[in-house]
Amino acid sequence: MDKSKLWSGRFDGETSNLTEAFTASQHFDRRLAEYDLAGTIAHVRMLQACSVITPGDSEEILTGLRQISEEIREHRFPWRVEHEDVHMNIEVRLIELIGDAGKKVHTGRSRNDQVATDLRLFVRAAIDQILQAISALQSALVDVADREADTIMPGLTHLQSAQPVTAGHHLLAWVEMLERDWQRCGDCRRRVNISPLGSGALAGTSFPIDREMTAAELGFEDISANSLDAVSDRDFVIEFCGAAALLGIHLSRMAEDLVLWSSENCRFVDLGDAFCTGSSIMPQKKNPDVAELVRGKSGRLLGNVTSLMVLMKGQPLSYNRDNQEDKEPLFDTVDTVLACLQVMTAMLS
Amino acid sequence: MDKSKLWSGRFDGETSNLTEAFTASQHFDRRLAEYDLAGTIAHVRMLQACSVITPGDSEEILTGLRQISEEIREHRFPWRVEHEDVHMNIEVRLIELIGDAGKKVHTGRSRNDQVATDLRLFVRAAIDQILQAISALQSALVDVADREADTIMPGLTHLQSAQPVTAGHHLLAWVEMLERDWQRCGDCRRRVNISPLGSGALAGTSFPIDREMTAAELGFEDISANSLDAVSDRDFVIEFCGAAALLGIHLSRMAEDLVLWSSENCRFVDLGDAFCTGSSIMPQKKNPDVAELVRGKSGRLLGNVTSLMVLMKGQPLSYNRDNQEDKEPLFDTVDTVLACLQVMTAMLS
Amino acid sequence: MDKSKLWSGRFDGETSNLTEAFTASQHFDRRLAEYDLAGTIAHVRMLQACSVITPGDSEEILTGLRQISEEIREHRFPWRVEHEDVHMNIEVRLIELIGDAGKKVHTGRSRNDQVATDLRLFVRAAIDQILQAISALQSALVDVADREADTIMPGLTHLQSAQPVTAGHHLLAWVEMLERDWQRCGDCRRRVNISPLGSGALAGTSFPIDREMTAAELGFEDISANSLDAVSDRDFVIEFCGAAALLGIHLSRMAEDLVLWSSENCRFVDLGDAFCTGSSIMPQKKNPDVAELVRGKSGRLLGNVTSLMVLMKGQPLSYNRDNQEDKEPLFDTVDTVLACLQVMTAMLS
Amino acid sequence: MDKSKLWSGRFDGETSNLTEAFTASQHFDRRLAEYDLAGTIAHVRMLQACSVITPGDSEEILTGLRQISEEIREHRFPWRVEHEDVHMNIEVRLIELIGDAGKKVHTGRSRNDQVATDLRLFVRAAIDQILQAISALQSALVDVADREADTIMPGLTHLQSAQPVTAGHHLLAWVEMLERDWQRCGDCRRRVNISPLGSGALAGTSFPIDREMTAAELGFEDISANSLDAVSDRDFVIEFCGAAALLGIHLSRMAEDLVLWSSENCRFVDLGDAFCTGSSIMPQKKNPDVAELVRGKSGRLLGNVTSLMVLMKGQPLSYNRDNQEDKEPLFDTVDTVLACLQVMTAMLS
Repeated sequence: MDKSKLWSGRFDGETSNLTEAFTASQHFDRRLAEYDLAGTIAHVRMLQACSVITPGDSEEILTGLRQISEEIREHRFPWRVEHEDVHMNIEVRLIELIGDAGKKVHTGRSRNDQVATDLRLFVRAAIDQILQAISALQSALVDVADREADTIMPGLTHLQSAQPVTAGHHLLAWVEMLERDWQRCGDCRRRVNISPLGSGALAGTSFPIDREMTAAELGFEDISANSLDAVSDRDFVIEFCGAAALLGIHLSRMAEDLVLWSSENCRFVDLGDAFCTGSSIMPQKKNPDVAELVRGKSGRLLGNVTSLMVLMKGQPLSYNRDNQEDKEPLFDTVDTVLACLQVMTAMLS
Repeated sequence: MDKSKLWSGRFDGETSNLTEAFTASQHFDRRLAEYDLAGTIAHVRMLQACSVITPGDSEEILTGLRQISEEIREHRFPWRVEHEDVHMNIEVRLIELIGDAGKKVHTGRSRNDQVATDLRLFVRAAIDQILQAISALQSALVDVADREADTIMPGLTHLQSAQPVTAGHHLLAWVEMLERDWQRCGDCRRRVNISPLGSGALAGTSFPIDREMTAAELGFEDISANSLDAVSDRDFVIEFCGAAALLGIHLSRMAEDLVLWSSENCRFVDLGDAFCTGSSIMPQKKNPDVAELVRGKSGRLLGNVTSLMVLMKGQPLSYNRDNQEDKEPLFDTVDTVLACLQVMTAMLS
Repeated sequence: MDKSKLWSGRFDGETSNLTEAFTASQHFDRRLAEYDLAGTIAHVRMLQACSVITPGDSEEILTGLRQISEEIREHRFPWRVEHEDVHMNIEVRLIELIGDAGKKVHTGRSRNDQVATDLRLFVRAAIDQILQAISALQSALVDVADREADTIMPGLTHLQSAQPVTAGHHLLAWVEMLERDWQRCGDCRRRVNISPLGSGALAGTSFPIDREMTAAELGFEDISANSLDAVSDRDFVIEFCGAAALLGIHLSRMAEDLVLWSSENCRFVDLGDAFCTGSSIMPQKKNPDVAELVRGKSGRLLGNVTSLMVLMKGQPLSYNRDNQEDKEPLFDTVDTVLACLQVMTAMLS
Repeated sequence: MDKSKLWSGRFDGETSNLTEAFTASQHFDRRLAEYDLAGTIAHVRMLQACSVITPGDSEEILTGLRQISEEIREHRFPWRVEHEDVHMNIEVRLIELIGDAGKKVHTGRSRNDQVATDLRLFVRAAIDQILQAISALQSALVDVADREADTIMPGLTHLQSAQPVTAGHHLLAWVEMLERDWQRCGDCRRRVNISPLGSGALAGTSFPIDREMTAAELGFEDISANSLDAVSDRDFVIEFCGAAALLGIHLSRMAEDLVLWSSENCRFVDLGDAFCTGSSIMPQKKNPDVAELVRGKSGRLLGNVTSLMVLMKGQPLSYNRDNQEDKEPLFDTVDTVLACLQVMTAMLS
């Protein structure tokens, strides 16, 4: 044994299949492809504008990226596990398509600021969808509240009748809960919508780039102030997933009300056959499956934000590979929240 | 057995000591006393202004409340477990002091909107303290960063030297992290600073009260829109504790950097004897205890927000007694965050 | 509006695509297919032994199930989202293949005890794999510890040298940590390995079934004592995922040690090129990516068990549809733990 | 500035009050005093038996410890924040009482193995109390189940009547849930009941101590195998708090059933006045406060185990000061579980 090393030698050589499979992320982060392409296009245009690359190279690259975009959209893109992640898959493909010019997309940019950019673009788009979906559910609730403005129902505390309220009043309580979710997502969006491009691996770049230009091109409202922070920060993912978890708690409370209201002892609402299941051997039943699933899904939303906070706990600056674990809980949160909002909107329309 | 009841009879009669101890909260919620008094004072002034109570009653009540305030400040207040919580302890004492007029503080107000008000006032004050404490730590960091603007240190990714950076640049990365915490607490404050007074138990009140007046008196920026929501909402506690947990994650990352920088293999900083412990049998050691404790305390901050989300999950509207469990994690979060910010500020000054 | 119902009418009729997509689980629970088939085979043999179905029916069903098993293994099985879950997909296919006899698999069994059975068989198999994988990592560690029995290294407390230890001693500390994980998984296995078959939807069945026979056929050590509990209990999933989360915390601690030991300031180990990544522009770097990912994956394991506990919190007995959410965190935990153990074993061999 | 240090100088000298307050734990860990005394008594007897200290010293120390034990029991012990924790407070007091002989309690023992011992003794005692409390609740439930063996009630799935069951059958489902909690606590106890004494700071001791003797004296079933592991391991706290959190989830489900059963639409049980609160202005109400609080307390139990796992995530071996944070969530878990079990037992008797 080498005097100064506990392990060595044995593992030199080829990256084993085991490691490749363990470290690869392209099977899930390919979802970022459109944002990765957008980020690269903005970066390349800026490089040309700043005369870091020639118009010819720029043109070639943009043509290549357009082709890749098409390949991905048409499910013809040759995803390869050995190229690890979405960024490398696209870069390798670009070089295949246009040759050495493709390597220039790396000029003045590193994987670390690139992935932060992609992720911010993804979260921004997700928030925009969720803001719309929250509003749609609020609209549906306001409509029913309007119809039921005079319908008296028991107002409960401790699940006991306290004072009569109107059904409309109860539904508008839900609208208020959602309003805060809407606000929180909006507040979060301001912190998401900041460009980390130009931060490099952690210390910026010596190329004469124009960070304001890429930020403007990509619709970012500001540029990040510190490169070490920009590549290691995942606050925007955690804050978003935290807001989503609280939204999930709200939905679980609405779902609980619906399950109670549709129970036999109450029969205050009929949730509609489309949102319930029956039982051939128990024809009296109309199980509120959709509401129960919405209630249950609050668990995964809370689990996701927990995962992310544990992920970042105690990480030294700046970027560490741990952060690759940020994507799956984020994607799952986006999908879960949107699905719950949509199905609740349909059920309450 | 009574045909329609599984259990009954046996438990009628006196509330047992066991239940009293289980349900009492005065040993921790007395911390809300000053906010409870402020809320009641505002409520009483409004009741008089709206001619719901007489000037004489109002004067008597305000005198009684002033005396209670003094008793509490001077630790002479007779807290009693049998009066359960801070609100009842104060109300009972008021009646002892001034007689039946004391009962009128209940006019047009319920325990449910009262506790929500107290809690909002508490969180608002806590946020204001935390905003200041964040700024103080940022100032301390900016000062050191200024002094170390030219000090070269290795910039790390994956705990491996990547590119040289300045110590000042690294410290300013922490300032950026804290800046987002500052913003998040500020955004949260807007949602905290809304008056639920007038929501009653859940359905408002039929007394001709002036909600805007109590809100203005207490410095609230707005009044809540829906009474069912106002008494059951604890978003403001969860959002605050979530922002605090993320701040705690940031502090854990700074602490990790400090632990690494002060380790023998690095010796990049000397944290100062005041913030370390030594060992008589191992004189070479200078353990970074304070930094380690700050790192560890991220756990309780994350645990607290988890507790609160689990607490609210699946609760039907409106108020349920579960919510009494909102206070201890909140108080612990406030104390923990302030202590960590203060000790980090001292250590990094 | 119908006097007694808030919502009704609109949703009657066909289950919408939205609900179908929201409630379907076949895209993930098809992973239970082999256990579902095993459970059904045992059930059918028992039904015949108890003369509930004829030998002819039994033979037909078993032939059909064998064909389905082959179709699944050869990826020819026609999975259909409209049949919702793995159980219904298999049942519908069975009826397609053999006609009405296929419907008899439902005799004396409900979806609720069926899914509990499948899940228990899955967890049992997962535990057995994990027990082996823990042992393999322990063996690898014992081998290195043996080789490094005389290698002196600094023993750290507070990341400061406290007293010299041997590398072998440090590695054996990890073996002890893993030993407790091994024990916890084993203890959990005893509570997993209990047959819920015969519990029906929640109240058992009036058919003269032999619960001991199906339990024995499936290798269960005992049968569940209470049918309401058996269909609603997910303790075995939570306990397993809790043990896995603690294992993940252990792996995060080992990974942290490895990251520190391979850092430039320490260079105590060389993790092998296969488990690190380099950087073309920073050739001095050898980033411990695999160790960092292992450290990060502790987050998702903790997130998963959190999800599951939130899922069950406050659920009234017996089965509720919320429980469909139990599978994805469980599957993710199994995959994550096995991958981490395998890659750590390879890296430390 | 010192060339090699970022910070230094300023903080040398006296430990500031701020740090003292931040790092002190005697205000909560004094709860370990009786276990600390028991551990020291066993250690001293062993030191004498091994001829490490003289019978005279041993006698003096034991007399001093007996006096301290009395002082603590009678609330006369002079707890001092400047002595930081329970261990140091007792040691300093011992030296005050008997002079230099008191210093010998440190012979062959370090704070690190001492605190691990104390904590294990505490958890073992807590588990024993909890095992009894679980059994008591089970007995109460079996008694009611026996009385209600023939009482028919609707058996619910999805909160909809599925099939009739007996009330006794439902209550016995709860007994089964508790039975698994009982088993889990018992399994955990085996891993708790192992003596870390003799592990020293992290590397054992060179004194000729007899680890088996102290283990036997303290009722431990085994001794720890690896000193590095023994001082850094907190699995036994996490496993216990995990088992307690799952027990809390069970109690939340029972509480939910009770809240539903006592609601107006159901009125299946009368929980007894002692366990409910009424309302003077809403005399029809009988709020199930105790059940609601039990339901809510599942949140803090889950929060506590989350805190503890986050605490240990990514900690390098061996002992780090982070671990001081292990006690408050543990203590809170023990108190919460015992209180919930007792009040549920009273309510269901």
